[in-house]
Amino acid sequence: MINGIEHIGIAVSDLEKATKKFEKIFEQKPYKEELVNTQNVRTVFFNIGDSNTKIELIGSTNPVSPIAKYLQNNKEGIHHIALNVADIHKEMNRLKSLGIRLLNELPNKGADNKLICFLHPKDTNGVLIEICQEII
Amino acid sequence: MINGIEHIGIAVSDLEKATKKFEKIFEQKPYKEELVNTQNVRTVFFNIGDSNTKIELIGSTNPVSPIAKYLQNNKEGIHHIALNVADIHKEMNRLKSLGIRLLNELPNKGADNKLICFLHPKDTNGVLIEICQEII
Repeated sequence: MINGIEHIGIAVSDLEKATKKFEKIFEQKPYKEELVNTQNVRTVFFNIGDSNTKIELIGSTNPVSPIAKYLQNNKEGIHHIALNVADIHKEMNRLKSLGIRLLNELPNKGADNKLICFLHPKDTNGVLIEICQEII
Repeated sequence: MINGIEHIGIAVSDLEKATKKFEKIFEQKPYKEELVNTQNVRTVFFNIGDSNTKIELIGSTNPVSPIAKYLQNNKEGIHHIALNVADIHKEMNRLKSLGIRLLNELPNKGADNKLICFLHPKDTNGVLIEICQEII
């Protein structure tokens, strides 16, 4: 079961500059910054108004990062949307049974204390969808 | 002042097929479908779990639609994010004063009973941002 939209991920080439830009647009500071060593990324999170959907800016920390590779072939911009799920293993099986390919067969440790799994964007109308479950 | 993230807009080439696909992913039917003649698009809205951010699938109704033009140069996928604002004119002026170009100088009538204005994605790290205000 999908509980909601957890965040929108935006890939940026210069995280510091982008953070300053979005601070001005949103008129607030990010509530959290996090280095995710497993993904070679640094992330900055904003909570906007009454939304329970966050904005996550993502910059790469080295050239092997998936974000660095993404930015070699794509412009900066919206990279993915993340859906909150109650049980990531169950949800991975359900989505596979719909014919949607998973980009990882086992959940990975993502930012913000989450288990995450990405779905193949070719199976979801070009939208890179992450499903994520809070680690308790 | 930005009150929250109203929706995430996804550009699709076949709205009917995409709606069926996302109904399966989200395990629910859309709550609304709307023809927006001013934009030459048809839109389908999903409300997911506890999110107050909606998912909007957008298909073009004819070749002059901005979505048809977008899909000539881009693949299907996430097209924009929309931010709820209390006063769209005030917000347009505030964003202009930050050096962010607007794609329309006056608000347009958008889907779901909203006044809308798009910001130039080159000024917002490649993210196409719509600001929108409910028409009361």
